[in-house]
Amino acid sequence: MAVITPERLSLNTATTRAQWKLDQAIEGCARHGFGGLSPWRDQLQALGAEKAARQIRDAGLAVSGLCRGGWFTEEGALTDAVLADNRLAVDEAATIGAACLVMVVGGLPKGSRDIDGARAMIEDGLAKTLEYALTVGVKIAIEPLHPMYAADRAAVNTLAQALDICDRLGDGIGVAADVYHIWWDPAVKAEIARAGKERLYAFHLCDWLVPTTDMLNDRGMMGDGVIDIPGLRAAVEAEGFSGLNEVEIFSAGNWWKRDADEVMEIIIERAATCC
Amino acid sequence: MAVITPERLSLNTATTRAQWKLDQAIEGCARHGFGGLSPWRDQLQALGAEKAARQIRDAGLAVSGLCRGGWFTEEGALTDAVLADNRLAVDEAATIGAACLVMVVGGLPKGSRDIDGARAMIEDGLAKTLEYALTVGVKIAIEPLHPMYAADRAAVNTLAQALDICDRLGDGIGVAADVYHIWWDPAVKAEIARAGKERLYAFHLCDWLVPTTDMLNDRGMMGDGVIDIPGLRAAVEAEGFSGLNEVEIFSAGNWWKRDADEVMEIIIERAATCC
Repeated sequence: MAVITPERLSLNTATTRAQWKLDQAIEGCARHGFGGLSPWRDQLQALGAEKAARQIRDAGLAVSGLCRGGWFTEEGALTDAVLADNRLAVDEAATIGAACLVMVVGGLPKGSRDIDGARAMIEDGLAKTLEYALTVGVKIAIEPLHPMYAADRAAVNTLAQALDICDRLGDGIGVAADVYHIWWDPAVKAEIARAGKERLYAFHLCDWLVPTTDMLNDRGMMGDGVIDIPGLRAAVEAEGFSGLNEVEIFSAGNWWKRDADEVMEIIIERAATCC
Repeated sequence: MAVITPERLSLNTATTRAQWKLDQAIEGCARHGFGGLSPWRDQLQALGAEKAARQIRDAGLAVSGLCRGGWFTEEGALTDAVLADNRLAVDEAATIGAACLVMVVGGLPKGSRDIDGARAMIEDGLAKTLEYALTVGVKIAIEPLHPMYAADRAAVNTLAQALDICDRLGDGIGVAADVYHIWWDPAVKAEIARAGKERLYAFHLCDWLVPTTDMLNDRGMMGDGVIDIPGLRAAVEAEGFSGLNEVEIFSAGNWWKRDADEVMEIIIERAATCC
């Protein structure tokens, strides 16, 4: 398996969200020789999607994804507002030439205990967004989130569940496989093989720390935790996945407090030695 | 579905561990009309298993389980010490007439990223412990723990995975189904049906709070969270499960700070109205 060189890396801008606005992240990725980046929509909208697209293109960077569409359950029903926002996300993904629009699908509606109902609402939202995305040529990537987020962020929690949805919805929809969310799953390698190149749209890196002190913002740098990242990378690459290795670290206590250029350098080092 | 009356409840003594020693928990269960309890081994050993057995019998209480055997990966290999401790746990379960010995199987060995290896070690430990347990008539209940504990507590994380192990190991081994660990699983009802009465040895209640502020000790009282407890109870009872409804709440910030008799009263009320 080839070592990950900088041009095979993508910076998910959440990793440096405390330090860099999007224009700075674009410059930072170019300066450190990254192959691409994956912006979040709040930062993209702050800069302007057209302007961002130009800057990204001028910097010679690829866009491994746009984070994020979804949140279909946020208003307790699949409202026009939710669907319109997802269409806007599709348009933004098209504008910046994103390899996919990453979907964090939403958890239980406020006050609800009906997870089956939430999952039906999510699938309906995905189907309607996919319908639009197909017309503009944007790929939809369902990101199964770790089961600890089932209540409040995403009720799609395994690759198997995401792929079952993909099978029902057809072409143009696949998965974003984030090692943080899937490493624990006894079926992870079987489901990566089931996804295959056709459904593997994104591959996200970070690490699971022991102990984990915050359920959202205590992700680790690759190598600092317990995930067998090389094993998972080998599995996706065995299927022919050739997208960038996207680094997405939420870290209020550590990496968000460091100098962003130092973070980039450590990412490059760890990608080469721990992934 | 019948309302849960106090005699259908069991107190997992972790729920009142900050307030009551085991003899007090036995008295408390009798005073509040609970049908049984499920002690933890540290408390059981502090009182003495024989003495506890007498007190429990004199109080007319059943024992829905003994918490806990397992931790097979704790020493990085399946050592004689680990196996001996599990045989002792089996003996203790026999002494108090526990319906099962609950297994928290252990996570990754310290410094390891080899989850497949950990799982093999766990299955080996379960097989060896089962072999002994069969000789003394104690049932072994694998408790799949929420995936957020895969690294540091239990690398068996779904009912499907636990039942696959049971299928390989044969009679005398089943599962402890704790709503906290399994509620998020898209396959939970299918796997409860697969387990059936033959493999369902225990059913544990609490609730998943939103937000959850601590990964270990912020469980909710039934009704305070988002789990569809009646739906899960209906699923286990549809299989013929007739064991007690065991309440196990780790709650450093709330229930461990309350008067234990008040906690017992609230359990009785919530069992009748939210489960």
